Amino acid sequence: MTVSAKPPSGTRDFLPADVARREHVVSMIRRAYERHGFVPLETPTMERIEVLLGKYGDEGDQLIFRVLKRGEKLEVTAESTPDDLADLALRYDLTVPLARVVAAHSGSLPRYFRRYQIQPVWRADRPQKGRYREFYQCDVDFVGSTSIVAEHTVITAVTDALAALGFGGFTIRLNDRRVLTGIMDVAGVAEAERGGILTAIDKLDKIGIDGVRAEFVERGLNETQIAALEPVLAAISASEHPEASSTLLDQFGALLSPSAAGSAGIATMRELFALLSAAPVAAGRVAFDPSLARGLSYYTGPIFEIAVDGLSGSMGGGGRYDGLVGMFAGKSIPAVGFSLGLERLLVVMEERGMYPDVRRGSDVVVTRLDAASTEACLGIARGLREAGVRCEVFPDLDKLGKQFKYAEEIGARWVVLAGERELRDATAVVRDLLTGEQTTHPLSQLAEYVRSVVGGR
Amino acid sequence: MTVSAKPPSGTRDFLPADVARREHVVSMIRRAYERHGFVPLETPTMERIEVLLGKYGDEGDQLIFRVLKRGEKLEVTAESTPDDLADLALRYDLTVPLARVVAAHSGSLPRYFRRYQIQPVWRADRPQKGRYREFYQCDVDFVGSTSIVAEHTVITAVTDALAALGFGGFTIRLNDRRVLTGIMDVAGVAEAERGGILTAIDKLDKIGIDGVRAEFVERGLNETQIAALEPVLAAISASEHPEASSTLLDQFGALLSPSAAGSAGIATMRELFALLSAAPVAAGRVAFDPSLARGLSYYTGPIFEIAVDGLSGSMGGGGRYDGLVGMFAGKSIPAVGFSLGLERLLVVMEERGMYPDVRRGSDVVVTRLDAASTEACLGIARGLREAGVRCEVFPDLDKLGKQFKYAEEIGARWVVLAGERELRDATAVVRDLLTGEQTTHPLSQLAEYVRSVVGGR
Repeated sequence: MTVSAKPPSGTRDFLPADVARREHVVSMIRRAYERHGFVPLETPTMERIEVLLGKYGDEGDQLIFRVLKRGEKLEVTAESTPDDLADLALRYDLTVPLARVVAAHSGSLPRYFRRYQIQPVWRADRPQKGRYREFYQCDVDFVGSTSIVAEHTVITAVTDALAALGFGGFTIRLNDRRVLTGIMDVAGVAEAERGGILTAIDKLDKIGIDGVRAEFVERGLNETQIAALEPVLAAISASEHPEASSTLLDQFGALLSPSAAGSAGIATMRELFALLSAAPVAAGRVAFDPSLARGLSYYTGPIFEIAVDGLSGSMGGGGRYDGLVGMFAGKSIPAVGFSLGLERLLVVMEERGMYPDVRRGSDVVVTRLDAASTEACLGIARGLREAGVRCEVFPDLDKLGKQFKYAEEIGARWVVLAGERELRDATAVVRDLLTGEQTTHPLSQLAEYVRSVVGGR
Repeated sequence: MTVSAKPPSGTRDFLPADVARREHVVSMIRRAYERHGFVPLETPTMERIEVLLGKYGDEGDQLIFRVLKRGEKLEVTAESTPDDLADLALRYDLTVPLARVVAAHSGSLPRYFRRYQIQPVWRADRPQKGRYREFYQCDVDFVGSTSIVAEHTVITAVTDALAALGFGGFTIRLNDRRVLTGIMDVAGVAEAERGGILTAIDKLDKIGIDGVRAEFVERGLNETQIAALEPVLAAISASEHPEASSTLLDQFGALLSPSAAGSAGIATMRELFALLSAAPVAAGRVAFDPSLARGLSYYTGPIFEIAVDGLSGSMGGGGRYDGLVGMFAGKSIPAVGFSLGLERLLVVMEERGMYPDVRRGSDVVVTRLDAASTEACLGIARGLREAGVRCEVFPDLDKLGKQFKYAEEIGARWVVLAGERELRDATAVVRDLLTGEQTTHPLSQLAEYVRSVVGGR
């Protein structure tokens, strides 16, 4: 055997117990998204490479899995670049495909396209603990409205999903891209410098306040400018003290009053903060955090993250990006989105024992005692399935002990025994492997009895 | 706009109505498979290229989508072949990944691994009507037993799935690879010629009896040999006349008595035919068809196809392949599998109007009459969702007529209206857009009323 049987680096096989857990989580998220009126979209695994290139920055372009051209289309020379050799690429996120779909199907989409999409994406990142090359995103996007109802809807869809999964304690951190713009306005940071400064602020939780200050100096800000940015750094703890949000909103409202963008951002924050706080589940759990920056390349308005109590980092985030969805349609289309990362949710739920019983597989194994009973055993299984019971017939003629052992191995709690004597009497024995209890039933009442103890599916 | 918004050739975007239909079908198939004790497996989209190459024949190798090596691993010269440039490839079927998983996870799998897998596969075929480059397979495989219970289980799992989807009339065509071997034995066809002869027989339904006879001559068979193969050609109509199966089994039993393989095949066919015919759903619908050949490269025992009444071709097929699953484990592991093609099922169900109401999306749109009512409207929606009703709040302040029009556009039958007067009275109006009927309800009883007319989700 020369070929390794392992899956490719950074990818995983999901055995049945894994699939059951993943499907439980996905199904709860879907149902929450659907309660909020979102509808499912699925796009192809591959996109034409020109659809993806240039959308994720240079670093992103490097991480795209490219698919080789085929047949005569593939011309190889010593100078061929990866982009010469590839015409397709694997989906890198779910937002660019959404933008493409909005352009391709504009005639078939309703005025507001409220779609969710739960599919894998692929990034050729260095694999490490908890970070994979194939992983799922659970995105919800509200396309077509500038109303704050859109922000409110995607955020509550996500908090509803988390609550349904059993996460009682979470915090919604809010900021607005225009608040950050306002701060730059007030501090007099030149347009060209703003991206770098925002990147520095984004690292606040990794490198700390002193680290960010040092970056400000490195990037050539003077003392007055750094002093003007201090309130942002001071606000780092805002998300841990949601009760401070009202004060912070007032403070930043005053601070940013000279900036039109900043004032608009604060007004939106006040409104969103109030609307979100009105829901009992979110009361006391919404925090205005002016230090929240996120990857700011395409956000244009409110941005948000959800953190779960007791965990560092966020379970997901999003924001308003009014410039992106229209890129293939050639016009501006407003949109707000939120992306939950499935893998992190699964790890945390596993660690905290948050899974209900999601076992699949037979509840009942019909044992086989001799070749003559095969047809009868298959008939018994058919009757159980018609009653909605998950069951299987043991395939080989093996000692009864081995058949019981197999039933235990797959987690089936019950076995049915129908030997020569039982079949002559038109009966079968049901044995509960957990309690050892055995009962005998007429074949005509067997399915009903088993269904009553096992439950139908 | 220079970049096309179309999905790549041979792939499709699935809009919400498409996804709902696909998920309905997949969910019925899964439940049928699970009633038969099968458990779900998922494998990565990409496999290491050496895992796939050489498993599907030369033609298959050409159709594999190869993924370009990344970074320093990619060395391009004018002589580079596609296999030099790629280290990964997209999944081509679900059987080779199963074989890899059985080798990689042998310690964690039960004695019998009864897995189903419903995932897309990719083939760089020429796209044409009904044939795609990205399409789903719904496979069910029973790994680890040579018992005929395995064949019976995969076949009934599939017939159960078809019945659940509403296909009342289908025919199960059965043959055994050893019956075909026996026929070659009796006809004295040399080992080296057998593959070609089987390929010719496999074309029976495409090129007709005379076409197959012509191929026999071309391939150098003499008159005696062709005469010995005639009963197979004569059996072409067997699947249309299941009642002829018993006669055919007797006829071929006598014919193949000189061949050990042929006799073993007939004995198995008799047993499987009897066991399958015992189920009421299959009675009169099982046919022994000695002309059924299928892609014979890896089948070792029974082979089968399911045809739906009124449709040419099959909805799916499978068989026993005792040599394949062990290929990465380096030992022989018996297995029987059945693969249903999802796309064909969907087309037929669409044509025949077999879909129940699978609509997603809001049942209720909460209209908004003025900015002051936003918080109240969001609160009404929250209450409806808590009662399990799918609903959304209209985001923009638009004329009521436009809000109604949008509700109709997304298929929401009900709208809720809460204007200044209603909110002052702590009431809301529910309007049925289908009947035009309007009723007023106290806010405290609104969710209960809406749930009673809409139904919970």
